[in-house]
Amino acid sequence: MGDQEVGRASPFSVNDPDIKQLLEHNNTLSDLGSVSALLSWDQAVYMPGGAGEARSLQLATVSVIAHEKATNPKAGELLSKLYSRMCGGSCDFSYADTRLIRESMREYARAVKIPSTLVEELAVAASTGVECWKEAKKQSDFGLFKNSLRGLVELQVERASCLDSNTPPYDTLMDEYERGLTAAEAEKFFEPLKRELPGIVAATQNAGDSDLYDSFLRQRVKRDLLERFSCEVLAAMGFGFNTGRFDVSAHPFTTSFHPTDVRITSRYNEPSFMSSFFGAVHEGGHALYEQGIDLGLARTVLGTGVSMGIHESQSRLWENMIGRSTPFWTSWYPKLWADLLNGGHHVISEDRFVKAINMVKPGFIRVDADEVTYNLHILVRFELEKALISGDLSVDDVPSAWNEKMRQYLGTAPEKDSDGCLQDIHWSCGNFGYFPTYTLGNLNAAQLMATIRKEFSDFDERIVLGDTLFLREWLREKIHKHGCLYSPKELMMRVTGEELNPGYFLNYIKDKVSGLFGVSL
Amino acid sequence: MGDQEVGRASPFSVNDPDIKQLLEHNNTLSDLGSVSALLSWDQAVYMPGGAGEARSLQLATVSVIAHEKATNPKAGELLSKLYSRMCGGSCDFSYADTRLIRESMREYARAVKIPSTLVEELAVAASTGVECWKEAKKQSDFGLFKNSLRGLVELQVERASCLDSNTPPYDTLMDEYERGLTAAEAEKFFEPLKRELPGIVAATQNAGDSDLYDSFLRQRVKRDLLERFSCEVLAAMGFGFNTGRFDVSAHPFTTSFHPTDVRITSRYNEPSFMSSFFGAVHEGGHALYEQGIDLGLARTVLGTGVSMGIHESQSRLWENMIGRSTPFWTSWYPKLWADLLNGGHHVISEDRFVKAINMVKPGFIRVDADEVTYNLHILVRFELEKALISGDLSVDDVPSAWNEKMRQYLGTAPEKDSDGCLQDIHWSCGNFGYFPTYTLGNLNAAQLMATIRKEFSDFDERIVLGDTLFLREWLREKIHKHGCLYSPKELMMRVTGEELNPGYFLNYIKDKVSGLFGVSL
Repeated sequence: MGDQEVGRASPFSVNDPDIKQLLEHNNTLSDLGSVSALLSWDQAVYMPGGAGEARSLQLATVSVIAHEKATNPKAGELLSKLYSRMCGGSCDFSYADTRLIRESMREYARAVKIPSTLVEELAVAASTGVECWKEAKKQSDFGLFKNSLRGLVELQVERASCLDSNTPPYDTLMDEYERGLTAAEAEKFFEPLKRELPGIVAATQNAGDSDLYDSFLRQRVKRDLLERFSCEVLAAMGFGFNTGRFDVSAHPFTTSFHPTDVRITSRYNEPSFMSSFFGAVHEGGHALYEQGIDLGLARTVLGTGVSMGIHESQSRLWENMIGRSTPFWTSWYPKLWADLLNGGHHVISEDRFVKAINMVKPGFIRVDADEVTYNLHILVRFELEKALISGDLSVDDVPSAWNEKMRQYLGTAPEKDSDGCLQDIHWSCGNFGYFPTYTLGNLNAAQLMATIRKEFSDFDERIVLGDTLFLREWLREKIHKHGCLYSPKELMMRVTGEELNPGYFLNYIKDKVSGLFGVSL
Repeated sequence: MGDQEVGRASPFSVNDPDIKQLLEHNNTLSDLGSVSALLSWDQAVYMPGGAGEARSLQLATVSVIAHEKATNPKAGELLSKLYSRMCGGSCDFSYADTRLIRESMREYARAVKIPSTLVEELAVAASTGVECWKEAKKQSDFGLFKNSLRGLVELQVERASCLDSNTPPYDTLMDEYERGLTAAEAEKFFEPLKRELPGIVAATQNAGDSDLYDSFLRQRVKRDLLERFSCEVLAAMGFGFNTGRFDVSAHPFTTSFHPTDVRITSRYNEPSFMSSFFGAVHEGGHALYEQGIDLGLARTVLGTGVSMGIHESQSRLWENMIGRSTPFWTSWYPKLWADLLNGGHHVISEDRFVKAINMVKPGFIRVDADEVTYNLHILVRFELEKALISGDLSVDDVPSAWNEKMRQYLGTAPEKDSDGCLQDIHWSCGNFGYFPTYTLGNLNAAQLMATIRKEFSDFDERIVLGDTLFLREWLREKIHKHGCLYSPKELMMRVTGEELNPGYFLNYIKDKVSGLFGVSL
């Protein structure tokens, strides 16, 4: 076992017995992670409804075993030995070796701080949380989810305290999705957005023929045609169907069991058919990242996307900067028209279509939001979950606090909790601190796009001609293949030559909105 | 965790701390088994083609961990303690407790005999074996599968020797599927079949209008209609779609992750549309068994079907004794005609249809075989795999030996290995000693049916009226719910009042064939 990997050019010193042993430890943990991911994917996509309880117990068993393996004292001894050798400097470890050692040490140090009972409780709580949330959302009854949510908040606070009792729990939780990100730093990134976005929303409120667009986007299209169209776009993006799948679930998501097995989902019960399409493209962006990781890094702690902020930059770049752009639809709109809308009553011109899919309009649903208000949706969640975790907000008050924040930032609030605080799956899995990475993703994406446009002066022309593979190649070369070899900040510095700067996003969005709707910003 | 089980009426002394600990040990092993089963199900049904290597490694990792857990010395100590207590007689263990202790001891004793490296090699070999077999079958090229098969034979012989060096390896392998069954005993059961079946085949060779039937059964029907019809029959049998799924794979199979999650598959690329249907009903019979197991036994070594011979009795009973019977089609043929064959060119009367699906005709494919020749197909495999494992037959000679045995017992041999020795998946997963249990299943089924008919004098009338649920209830009460509480032999004795007697099958098949085709036997 492992011979196949050795056969490939490995970035690791596979002939070093200690490194070999560390790789085996990594392989076990990575495989157990893949197994959990498959159990969860199956639960979301194909599992029969009656199997929820058994599945929770299976997930808990795997979590407990993964935790046992992660905290194996022998791994601790091996890592100490490798660390001494690394610091001694007498050996010639590769750069990948040193990253593998450091990241494995970090994972070990974190794992030993968390008691096995807590790991198990969290696994059960997350799995049953998803089931309760599904039902609560279906019935739009927050009461059905409340107790689960309370339990998840308590368990995650407890977990954060185990990991680092000197840091506010919310910072510790965020750090898992975006290394080193703190609430204070996130607030700093949100600050210019909070200052400028409401003005953009106000300026575009009467631009475009919103009613026509609505009726156009809400027309019914055949699900199989929409699915086929999405598949064609995914293929053009370079999504590998031989190393991936595209299915249906209640909430679109991406999961990876290995770079050769990356799965995405979308849904087809949306009011706008374009929501399903953009869901597919968004998840496709995530999938390209995971499919593009160097196979030599697979089955190790380095063989995955480096952070959610970088991951979301990939999904949001494809969804918005490509998928909602004029050049993209110059290439694809005729096909959309012919394949999906043929015979439809509401056919509009290509430029009106592009306006329609970019309408800036405060709504209730994050995943349906335009690029401007999207970040305000994130702000709502960021501030609420920060307060939930700090204890400033009680679970009982979530629905009213949600609606209040919605009114504050978006000027509107939903009537049903299914359109409000029950719309997202994240909290039901115990994921707190995840939401801010979506906005971080938008900021990263805009900064990456600025670099790409400098490198490809004919960028728009290529997209118009239907070529999107060059973009995947560039992203794969610059970002995907490296997995976790560089930290998110190092990666952005290497690729764009500067630290994250929200100005790129603001420039991008102002240019786009003013160009499309003829408003001056 | 486990509280839900405790909440149910448990057959175990859950308040005894040692029993509680043994149940936890059982739960871990059972969950790991379910995880492996999910990895395999997904590989067969949904996994993208490029992920085969990664999946093999994941399966190997889980196997190694399951083996570690199974051989944990603490489990050994616990079992010794429980065994002493049981023999001491001073405690009041339930019957289920004593079965749990004995079966857990057996599993432990077996597991410690097998080195972990062998477990891993076997897992990799089985997973890559399936991939090679798929390709070899597709191309009808035995050469592509030969090396895999050789490796699997060697590994299974090695494993059998580890388990018991004093018993012929084939007996040891058989014992895993059917406790206590030896090659000698199997030969004893086959003896009357070998003696009488060829005569039945000969007597029916000119009965029925074989050409008409062929053209009828080979007509094309729409896959989705066929799938829907199969689902309706499965529902009528009592298959729970809320605790099960029905999918498509290259080779029909049943897998269970828990009594609340039992999955079956069929296929739709068969020359006869009825093959797909009978595949579904066959697997449905297996599934009813697994879905019917007492939830109190779930997640323990007792929470599964007790043996393959009993399992196959369930599938073969539903497939043949119900699914190929006149009373069943009196109820269902009008629906089949209306839903599937409407507008078809080849519509025949109900009694000719029943003859068509019961034609006794030597063919190449086991899963398409009639009830008479089926057991001759099994005989071919039984004798070949016995010789493979004993070393009397070399892997290179399998295709020619296959064809020779086919000529000997069925009077015909295929031209392509895909219709011959490559048709079945079993050997590619390393399953040797499994095939005889199919015939054992036929024998058990006939004996069970004789008992059922004694209890329900209106059996045929009920089936004619479309009632099949009473049969599931009877089987659930008598067989399914007990899981492994009784050995296969005890179970047959409890339910039918006597030991296995092949005479029931011979009586059944002679009655059926002579009744349908008007031949005297």
